[in-house]
Amino acid sequence: MSRVPDEGMVLIPGGSLITKTPEEGRALALTLARHTIHNIQPDLDVLKGGRTTYSTAPESLMHAAQVVALEFQTIAAANGYWRD
Amino acid sequence: MSRVPDEGMVLIPGGSLITKTPEEGRALALTLARHTIHNIQPDLDVLKGGRTTYSTAPESLMHAAQVVALEFQTIAAANGYWRD
Amino acid sequence: MSRVPDEGMVLIPGGSLITKTPEEGRALALTLARHTIHNIQPDLDVLKGGRTTYSTAPESLMHAAQVVALEFQTIAAANGYWRD
Amino acid sequence: MSRVPDEGMVLIPGGSLITKTPEEGRALALTLARHTIHNIQPDLDVLKGGRTTYSTAPESLMHAAQVVALEFQTIAAANGYWRD
Amino acid sequence: MSRVPDEGMVLIPGGSLITKTPEEGRALALTLARHTIHNIQPDLDVLKGGRTTYSTAPESLMHAAQVVALEFQTIAAANGYWRD
Amino acid sequence: MSRVPDEGMVLIPGGSLITKTPEEGRALALTLARHTIHNIQPDLDVLKGGRTTYSTAPESLMHAAQVVALEFQTIAAANGYWRD
Repeated sequence: MSRVPDEGMVLIPGGSLITKTPEEGRALALTLARHTIHNIQPDLDVLKGGRTTYSTAPESLMHAAQVVALEFQTIAAANGYWRD
Repeated sequence: MSRVPDEGMVLIPGGSLITKTPEEGRALALTLARHTIHNIQPDLDVLKGGRTTYSTAPESLMHAAQVVALEFQTIAAANGYWRD
Repeated sequence: MSRVPDEGMVLIPGGSLITKTPEEGRALALTLARHTIHNIQPDLDVLKGGRTTYSTAPESLMHAAQVVALEFQTIAAANGYWRD
Repeated sequence: MSRVPDEGMVLIPGGSLITKTPEEGRALALTLARHTIHNIQPDLDVLKGGRTTYSTAPESLMHAAQVVALEFQTIAAANGYWRD
Repeated sequence: MSRVPDEGMVLIPGGSLITKTPEEGRALALTLARHTIHNIQPDLDVLKGGRTTYSTAPESLMHAAQVVALEFQTIAAANGYWRD
Repeated sequence: MSRVPDEGMVLIPGGSLITKTPEEGRALALTLARHTIHNIQPDLDVLKGGRTTYSTAPESLMHAAQVVALEFQTIAAANGYWRD
């Protein structure tokens, strides 16, 4: 089995929800979602096989977008919505 | 592969969650959802193929509306619900 | 193609999340969900065709109710839950 | 067509999210979900037909429970969680 | 029809969202979800039949976990996250 | 039946939502989701059988990620987003 590299297994890369910009916060939301999945399924071959399936299925893309939206709610709140 | 143009890959266009009006905030919610999907699937041909499928399937439209609702929760909170 | 009339494309009709009563707030939640869908699929014939399908499928009705619940969370918070 | 009676079409019965007890708040959550569905599908025969389907399907029951949970989040917040 | 006993129909057992510990709060989240379902489907035989189906299907278990997570969000907020 | 060990049945291991770091908070989110499922389905053989199914299905992995995102929203709020 080809395993996800160690840095892909860290649940919160950087160890903080605080980011300098909304753009970085959004990128973190995508990373959090992806690393959750790495922790549940660390086999790279299974992940790559699945990627072809879900990245071409509109419903799955929407589901991924939903998870990102949920993670971003948390990160945006953590950063006071980068209001200032 | 025909790729999503660079501006479609920016996760938070404008770099801020703050908008002048609720209407603009809502438009941003739709954009955030769309750009997440661009980042997961940047192949324009795959995206266009999928669009025909999901935009005519009621369940998929509802799912899209759900993602927009979640994004809007964050944006509305960020803007203090445009109360004044 | 028969297109959704312009007023059906406005994302936040009235341009505000503030309503006089919970009943109006709830009606706005339904409208927001519907207008999101109009913006993704503005072809009235496709929408009407889909309506027959989803409005008779219990799972789809539930999904619609879920989206309305999410929109209402935002609108209710915007209105301080109409507490006074 | 046999139509949902008028009182079943009111979106927020009682016109308020404030309830005396958590139990009443929870009952309101169930009512809100049901009345949303009445507004999307007001034909009683279609609703009764669908009820047999979803009320015996575990996945649909779970979906209904999910909608109730979301409505209850709003109602509980509106009532300050009935803390005192 | 064998009916869910009366105590299984109470929507908020104990009549309060306040619990002494997070563990009790979490148990309440599970109970709330279950009792919602009892109120929609009070026939014990249907419930028991469905249980075999959903409790062995990973997707359904995940959906159940999702509903519990949503209920717990409300209960945890009600208890100030048991911070002290 | 081979049963989930007692420690896997505790709903909130450690009895608190407060963690020292975001990383630990995220790990707790994964644990909460898993232990909910243990409480609904305590048969280890059924769980192990299901694991093969869902951990190789992209949609199921996404659903798992969604539940974790929801649990993390609660835990992050409980910890004031580990801002200091």
